[in-house]
Amino acid sequence: MQQFTQTIQVEAQGRRLYDITPQVISWANEQGLNTGLLTLYIQHTSASLLINENYDGDVLVDMEAFFNRLVPDGDALFIHTVEGPDDMPAHVRTALTQTSLSIPLIDGSISLGQWQGLFLFEHRHMPATRRIIMHLIGE
Amino acid sequence: MQQFTQTIQVEAQGRRLYDITPQVISWANEQGLNTGLLTLYIQHTSASLLINENYDGDVLVDMEAFFNRLVPDGDALFIHTVEGPDDMPAHVRTALTQTSLSIPLIDGSISLGQWQGLFLFEHRHMPATRRIIMHLIGE
Amino acid sequence: MQQFTQTIQVEAQGRRLYDITPQVISWANEQGLNTGLLTLYIQHTSASLLINENYDGDVLVDMEAFFNRLVPDGDALFIHTVEGPDDMPAHVRTALTQTSLSIPLIDGSISLGQWQGLFLFEHRHMPATRRIIMHLIGE
Repeated sequence: MQQFTQTIQVEAQGRRLYDITPQVISWANEQGLNTGLLTLYIQHTSASLLINENYDGDVLVDMEAFFNRLVPDGDALFIHTVEGPDDMPAHVRTALTQTSLSIPLIDGSISLGQWQGLFLFEHRHMPATRRIIMHLIGE
Repeated sequence: MQQFTQTIQVEAQGRRLYDITPQVISWANEQGLNTGLLTLYIQHTSASLLINENYDGDVLVDMEAFFNRLVPDGDALFIHTVEGPDDMPAHVRTALTQTSLSIPLIDGSISLGQWQGLFLFEHRHMPATRRIIMHLIGE
Repeated sequence: MQQFTQTIQVEAQGRRLYDITPQVISWANEQGLNTGLLTLYIQHTSASLLINENYDGDVLVDMEAFFNRLVPDGDALFIHTVEGPDDMPAHVRTALTQTSLSIPLIDGSISLGQWQGLFLFEHRHMPATRRIIMHLIGE
């Protein structure tokens, strides 16, 4: 049994979904394991991970529109406003989505479904450097 | 240390929660491990995984009612409507719940709480074949 | 490759976020592994896990306020009301957050980001004993 780790750094340029699928697949599949478990972990509380449809770009637009309406910027409910009107909404959006994701590796490939893409979901409007840790265990 | 994988196929007959607890428990416990980690991964973006109360069927009805109200079919917000009024809501409901779940195995049994059941949460109204990958590592 | 397991018991005194970061970090880092994967699993359907900002206590207040508004106690939508007006909202809030979380361990430390704290999110108003299982694998 072996383990591998790697960090993906994304230079996010504002609130939207960033496709990290190619980077994750190529790294996971290149470690030479047959069977294993890949875990992604994002080290932030204002950006998260999401598995979403990877085919029609409109899905990404609609996903953002839904979260924007559900957790509006500048909501008078929030008292933590020192970092701006999108700061507390970013924490809530992170809570409603994923900080870690685990995907089995079978027959040498990670088991993404046909229409599944892996995305960094940036929730702040300003640019930010985001770090995602990958951990792979198997043989 | 050993690994095992298996696929559960569910023939979903429309939007609701499908109990997969017995299949998961029996497979995980039958591999003969004492300590380990079980991961479930669903290969779709319109169906998800949920751990929910397994005792009172009304909880499943209410859970569906809540998501139905939070993410209404045919919402004018959405532009991705080509696959029907329940397509984009299905993606959003998937984003708000789980695509992967990991559960420790201790003393030869997976560590589900007394009231926890494992469910496939189908979000489309039409029938669909859904695949859940199980990965177990331990010894 | 080695595995370790441990249970954290929290005596929750009503609905709010409880910081479990110090307990988790000290246990995970004390097992003497260099590289591994830590998984947390909560054995309940009315309490969940959340990674949230650990610096400003106002974030915890706002997070609770958001979920309280999104899933109001005593909502007439719900038919499962036998255990009180906060019972079904507790199940929904659990569904919207996390039951399991996995965090890589690298260079002997778990890879929490600088502003990330680990929280038990209690969703019932009455006191409850909550159990979180920790599983660590690595070498």
